[in-house]
This record gives sequence, structure tokens and C-alpha cells, in this order.
Amino acid sequence: MFESAEIGHQIKKAEFDRQTPLLRQALLTAQYKLLEQNKAAVIILVNGVDGAGKGETVNLFNQWMDPRHIHTHAFGAASDGERDRPDMWRFWQALPPKGRIGILFGSWYTDPIIQRVMSRQRGQDRDKRRSADSDQTRHNERDAHCTAVFEKQLARIRDLERMLVAEGAAIVKLWFHLSKDAQAERLRTLSAKKSTAWRVTKDDWRQYKHYDEFIEVCELALRETSTGEAPWHIIEGSNHAYRSLAAGNLLLNALDRTLKGTTASLTPAEPLPERSLDKLSISNTADYSRSLGRASYERQLTKLQGELSLLTRHKRFKERSLVLVFEGMDAAGKGSTIRRITGAIDARLFRVVPIAAPTDEERAQPYLWRFWRQIPARGHAVIFDRSWYGRVLVERVEKLCKPTDWMRAYHEINEFEDTLTDSGSIVLKFWLAITRKEQLKRFKLREKTPHKNFKITSDDWRNREKWSAYELALSDMIDRTSSEIAPWNVIASDDKLWSRIEVLKRMCAAIEKTL
Amino acid sequence: MFESAEIGHQIKKAEFDRQTPLLRQALLTAQYKLLEQNKAAVIILVNGVDGAGKGETVNLFNQWMDPRHIHTHAFGAASDGERDRPDMWRFWQALPPKGRIGILFGSWYTDPIIQRVMSRQRGQDRDKRRSADSDQTRHNERDAHCTAVFEKQLARIRDLERMLVAEGAAIVKLWFHLSKDAQAERLRTLSAKKSTAWRVTKDDWRQYKHYDEFIEVCELALRETSTGEAPWHIIEGSNHAYRSLAAGNLLLNALDRTLKGTTASLTPAEPLPERSLDKLSISNTADYSRSLGRASYERQLTKLQGELSLLTRHKRFKERSLVLVFEGMDAAGKGSTIRRITGAIDARLFRVVPIAAPTDEERAQPYLWRFWRQIPARGHAVIFDRSWYGRVLVERVEKLCKPTDWMRAYHEINEFEDTLTDSGSIVLKFWLAITRKEQLKRFKLREKTPHKNFKITSDDWRNREKWSAYELALSDMIDRTSSEIAPWNVIASDDKLWSRIEVLKRMCAAIEKTL
Repeated sequence: MFESAEIGHQIKKAEFDRQTPLLRQALLTAQYKLLEQNKAAVIILVNGVDGAGKGETVNLFNQWMDPRHIHTHAFGAASDGERDRPDMWRFWQALPPKGRIGILFGSWYTDPIIQRVMSRQRGQDRDKRRSADSDQTRHNERDAHCTAVFEKQLARIRDLERMLVAEGAAIVKLWFHLSKDAQAERLRTLSAKKSTAWRVTKDDWRQYKHYDEFIEVCELALRETSTGEAPWHIIEGSNHAYRSLAAGNLLLNALDRTLKGTTASLTPAEPLPERSLDKLSISNTADYSRSLGRASYERQLTKLQGELSLLTRHKRFKERSLVLVFEGMDAAGKGSTIRRITGAIDARLFRVVPIAAPTDEERAQPYLWRFWRQIPARGHAVIFDRSWYGRVLVERVEKLCKPTDWMRAYHEINEFEDTLTDSGSIVLKFWLAITRKEQLKRFKLREKTPHKNFKITSDDWRNREKWSAYELALSDMIDRTSSEIAPWNVIASDDKLWSRIEVLKRMCAAIEKTL
Repeated sequence: MFESAEIGHQIKKAEFDRQTPLLRQALLTAQYKLLEQNKAAVIILVNGVDGAGKGETVNLFNQWMDPRHIHTHAFGAASDGERDRPDMWRFWQALPPKGRIGILFGSWYTDPIIQRVMSRQRGQDRDKRRSADSDQTRHNERDAHCTAVFEKQLARIRDLERMLVAEGAAIVKLWFHLSKDAQAERLRTLSAKKSTAWRVTKDDWRQYKHYDEFIEVCELALRETSTGEAPWHIIEGSNHAYRSLAAGNLLLNALDRTLKGTTASLTPAEPLPERSLDKLSISNTADYSRSLGRASYERQLTKLQGELSLLTRHKRFKERSLVLVFEGMDAAGKGSTIRRITGAIDARLFRVVPIAAPTDEERAQPYLWRFWRQIPARGHAVIFDRSWYGRVLVERVEKLCKPTDWMRAYHEINEFEDTLTDSGSIVLKFWLAITRKEQLKRFKLREKTPHKNFKITSDDWRNREKWSAYELALSDMIDRTSSEIAPWNVIASDDKLWSRIEVLKRMCAAIEKTL
């Protein structure tokens, strides 16, 4: 995979000087057009071997183009706020908005690769110490596990990148390479000169020793993530002129394709049927017969709130986080249920996020961005009053996005929740189901009650007309996103009291099980 | 000051149960009206003595009102990302947008008060160890210094709060108090019961020992920051019913006043004159005679960029940060100057922030918020292409805000820059001055050159018509905001080459001086 980047590519200075002004001008023009179109972001990932010119190229891009519209982020060790959230969180925070170029220096590839290299080294160190057959078996098992973790991370990255492309971004993945010999020579040359010796640390030499293992892991990573929509480009890094022109031309290409709107697009799937074959649906097959008297409700509420309060103060909860999702037709009781939950949790630990129309900063990003920015740190809870499921509910029904967009959303959402769960979040999803009849009753009550008046708008009546379209979307949603790690809880909610208690019961049980 | 909060206020449970539903209903209604008006934020600061019911009250507010529209932030120890920025930064990030209620639990008062108490304790410990007269003098000097620091912090808080109120926010400052006896009793009661003993830590008892000093410092803080526009309210904390009703009623009051638009408003000052007495101005008295040949420019540019590059890689720079501000008439050369600077700094260390129209998230906050969110961490640089000075330039000239708003902005801006400087930022401000004639020349050139075409719009021609109004605003701006800590550098920029070199020279000199 790296063969063609070890053959000593180079370009003469005169040729470089001739080509550079043209390239710069073209890049700058393309950058301004991108800004003017304001339709797509271009994300440049900069990775590769140490000393292969990554930093220099990032600086060059900032010199060649207008740095005012480039968002450069360098990722080193995670800060404490970042460590308390899923690994991907900090990259989401750094995504460039539409119209801009974002450079991620040290991207979502860096940590998985380094972890994998380190786990292999630990394995080898153990091998040196022991040699019995049983140890060998154990070693193999351990290594297989680490490989599986690594491959899962790579699969997740593929999904992320596919989603970004589908959301209109172009991803330019640059890998700067140096052969083992070239790297050794570079370290020696730097060390020899007084003025550059400080740039070579002990770490550099240590890393150099593990060059082969590192490259082997990288090779796998690149192979598994070089997809049609976001291929890797390997650039030989030893010659400044060659490297710079190669990187610049790749970027120019990507910009041009983005401007023409000919970026990789995904095959549109056959959209799901627009009507149900029979009249059965999740909401009309729920069991609405259950109800609860006021006295029993009060008693159980107090007990369950106490339980929930203890659970969120449990010392093991400090290592987890809680993501609650509430969905349901209008007037299903989402708000009032949420208040029974927040009433039991210390206000310092939770945040309720009501989802309405996105702000313009949110609109300039992939649709999941607005949820990623709200992801709780360890020890905290976030309660979403409506959520990312809007993509496959209201956006589908109201045709606010294309069928290909909501079709791909099911998988993207599953991936998102899987990422959350993997990082220690407890993800609980509730669909508060009510009957059409009960909704009508509540709408009328809201119209009559002065302090509930603000809760009912003409939108609500309009949505009600689309009941069956919503029911269909709901069915598809539950079929496709009720996973083992984050199952949907469909709660019959015509009886508010029973519904609230049921939600609290399931919450407490799920949290207790995890802790 | 705390006398009336040590007299054993209490309310009977029956009375509490009678009043609570009415209060809750009123609070909820007010909260929804606030949301609907979407004009002002309500900021609740929760401070006071440990164990006086702060946390309980925060929880109660979240139970009484709709938690979906309350932003609760608890401030403990700062995270590493927060420590790398001015102290106020994390509070700015937590300000509620218009229409919302924000609860800051442990507010901008906490750290200054605790620091002051600790510095006094350190002083007393030293006193115990030594007793010579000379030591006494030294002690007094040290204490006077700490007092001065504390008072400066309080003054800064007053300014911050005044500004927030002027921007339309209401600030409700709640101080929960317990007398020394009441606190001792509380700690004893909690310790006695098995189920609550865990809530009392060694720290609590240690803090209790220093109760008197703590109260003395708090007394000063409250006295100095209880202003007409943002007064403190002291609430006796020992009785749950009394405390809750008192806090709830204070909040309701503030909400009602906010809804009626009768929050504290500042005396409008006499606006500054709309025309100059003579024809002299900053831009036409700059010395435009200086110019530079291309060869000399190239030579100096290389030298200065090298210098700047070294300075930003200096180990002491890791403890500072750099805030650069570029202002100037259209076509003054801000963009091209900035590119000569960024060309010398590692792209991982700087961010260029071009200031255009605010996003809707920014519009829902005080005008300085969009700049606070961009403040660099230690070791980093942010370059503003236009800045907070828009408030006293374009917003003044185009009448986008009221005279009282831009009139108060001078002081607010000085405070802002003082805060930055105090936290270790180097703040450098450049006004690139060009003559009206030179601007015309550049406009025409832009119109003719295809790849510069996008840079010239009808807005530019319109602004040009208001040249003299801008000149007047500029004069006032420089008179009022060119301070010793952050002076304005007015650079005659009709000759672009000379101007760029001059900017780089001054930058390098200023940074070198600070490091």
C-alpha cells in the first residue's frame, strides 16, 4: 500500500516555483466559491508518519488560501472535558460549517491506530516473558479481542465518513508517508544540526524502533477505510516540493468536485412503502387497558423518585451518563413525564433539551451535530424532549428531507447510539403512545384551560391530520432502531398516571441493571 | 448585613402548602411569557453559606417551573480548558439566551471570595509563626495587596452585571445564610443520623471553624456588589418553607418586572457630538509619506516573520495568549496584513475570526458573547478581522443600536480588554488608516480584477458615502479605548508594503516586551 510512496518522488525547485502561483490562485478562487455557494464543507484529514511534513502542509494550506475561512484543529491528548464524553465528541465539535474548509490535524484515526499499536506491543512484551502453550492461547485470544475492537472502530469511522459525505461534505484524507530509511535519515539529519536538534526527542527514536508494527497497523486502517466516497491519498513526504504540490492538487481536485456538486453520492435506496398493508400499528396495538388511581400513583411516584434519586447519586453513576429520549404524538405527555423525572434528580446533574427548529449554526452542520453538542459528561444526564428521531418522523412525513436522507438515518442513528453506549452512556428511549381519541380530548382541554393555551397551536391540528403517516413512520422507526443496546419502550399513555409510573419503573430497572 | 437572616424566620407547613400551588402557577405562567416574549434572559445567581439550602432551592426551581427552559450550571473546580482562559470565560459560556432562565450555582462570586478567605488564613498562619515588627509591616503590605485584588474583582463583577442588565437581562442574586449556631446545629444533626452522616465531610467542619472570617469577607463582597440594578437578596436558610417561599417570591418579582420591561435601566448619557469641530481626524493626520520598496519589503518581511515565528514558539508564550484586533475602513488591507502574520505562525496555534453579521445564537446573547466564545487558550492566538469595536463604529454610524448602548460600550470594552490582559493575554489593536482617495483607487482596482471582484459590493460604496461619520466614530473610539494596557496602533496604510512591515514590527516588539 505504501510502495509508491517509497520511490523517492521529488520535484525540482524551479518546477515548484513555476507551478505554485497557479495552484495558489486556483485554490484561493475555489475557496471563495465554496464560501459563496455556502452549501458544502470540505474536511481535510491530515495523518501519517512523524516527520513526513504534516505540520508543514497544514501551514502551507493556511498560507496559500485565506486563513479567515479555514478552521484548523490540532488534536493532541484529550482535555478532561473531552475524556468525559465519547471519543468522537471532540471531532464533532470541530467540524467546519458549510462553506468552510476544516483541517483536522490528528483526526479520528490517530487514537485507534496508536491504541492498536500499543496493545500489540504489550502482547509482544508478555510473549518475551512467558512461553508456555497455554499463554500462547491466551495471547491469541487477547490479540483477537484487540483486533476486533480495532475493526469495530474502523467500521464506525467508515460509517461516520459516509454520513458526512451524504450530508454534503467532501472529505480529503491525506496520509503523509516516509519509508523506514527516510525516517531514520531525517532524525539523524535533524539531530546533527544544533539549530534543529531540539526537534528530535527520545520519543521519536522510540517510535522509530516500532516503525514496522506501526506501519502494519496503519496499512490495515487505511485499507479498511479507503472507501469510494472517502478514499485515502498517500503522499511521499520526504521532498517538500513534491509533497506540497501533491497535497495542494488533491485539495484543489476535491474543491472543484465539491463546487460542481459531483462529490460521491450514495445509491438511493428504494424508499419504504408510504402506506401500511393493514390497519394495525404500534400505537393502536398498545395495551391501553392499564390505569392507576391517584392514591396508588402518589405512593408509587414517591417510591420511584426516591429510587431514581439514589441511583443518580450512586458512586458508579459517576462513571456513566444517562441519555433519555422522549418521543410521542403531540399532547402525549412528554413534558409532564419529564418533570416527574427531573423532580427526582439533582438539578446540577441534568439538562433538559427541548428540540425545536434548528438554529442557523446547527443548520450549517450535519443533522446529528446539534445532538452531539448536548451529549452529557460522565455523571450527568441529558433528557431530550424530541430528538434525532425527528429525522425519520417529522422530517420524513413533512418531506423536509429526501427519502435517501431519512432512509440512511436509521443506520446512522443506530451507530450514534452504539457510540454513546460504548462510551458508558445509558441510552433509554420512550415512545409515549396515545390514541387518536385521547389526543382530541387533550387538545380540547388545552384550548379551554387558560394556562395551557400556549401549548396548542394550529400546527398541532395540522399534524393530527397526518396521524396515519406518522403511525407508519413510527412503525418503521421502531422496527429499525429498537436495538438490543437501546430498545424502544412503547408506553401506552392514555392514562397519564400509569404511563408516568411505567416510565419511571423502566428507567430505574434499566439504570440499576447497568450499574 | 446578615442580622435579619439570623432571627429564626420560619413558615408553618400548612401555610407553605397553601401558598405553594399559587406561587408555582404564577412562576410557570411567567416563565412561559418570558419564553414567548423572547426579549430578555433572567439570570439567577445562587450563593451563600454551606448547608443553607442552595442546592435544594435550585432543585425546587426546576420542579416548580418547566425544566426544559431552565439552564442550570453548577460551577465547581475549573476544567483544564477553563483554566487556560480568563476566569470569566466559563460563566460567559453558561449565560442563558434571551427568553430563558439561567441558574448559576456557584457563580462569579465564589472564587474571589474563597481566594480572599484563603489569603487571609495564610496571613494569620504566618502571624502565628513570627512576631517581629518588620514581619508585621510585611504582613500588612501583603494583606493590603490581597484586599486590592479582591476589590478589583468586585469592581469587575459590578461592571459585568451592569452590562448584562443594560443588555436586557435581569439578575436575581440570592444569598442563602445560616448563623454560626444554626450551621453547627445542622452539621451535628446530619452527623447524628446514619442516613445523612455521609453528607458531612471533614471539609465541612474545617470550613465551619473559619465561619467568622468567611462571613466577614462575604459581607464586604455583598456590600460592594449590591447595586441598584442588581441587588443582593439575603435569605435565612434554616427553615425549608420560609427559604423556599422567599426565594420563589423574589424570582417571581424579577420575572414580572422583566416581563413589564421595568427592569433597572441606566441613565442615558448625553450622546457624543455628531460632527467634528474642524476637519482634522485620525485618518487624515496620519503620516502617509512613508513607503517601502519591494526589495526592502521582502527582506524585512522574511526577517520579521522569522522573529514572530520564534516568539510564538518561545516557551514563555505557552503561558500567554495573543489577541489581535484589526479594524479599518473597507479595503484598508486587513485581510492581506493578516495573511502576512498567519504565514509566520504555526497553523495549529492560531485561529482567524472574521466578524460579519451575528448568528441567531449570538443575537440571543449580550454583544460581547460572540467574542468571549472565541477567546484563545494559553499558548494560542486569535486574530479578529473586525471585532467588538463594531459596536462603536458600524453599529453607531448605521444606528443599529441606541446611543446609550454604544456610549456604554467604551467602558465595557475597556473592562473586557483589561480582563483579558489580567489573565495573561497580549491584546494588540491595529487601525489600518487609509485616505479616501486611496480607498477609491482600491475599489476601482477590485472591480477590474476578476478574482478580486467578490470583494467589492454595493455596501462598500454605501459605507464610503458615510466616511466622515466613520471618521468621527473612529476618533471617539481611539480617544476612549486606547489604554495603556491595550493601546491602539494607528498605521498609515496607503502604502501596503510599509503598513504590513510596520504592523509586524510593532507586534514583535510588543510580544517580545511581554515575554
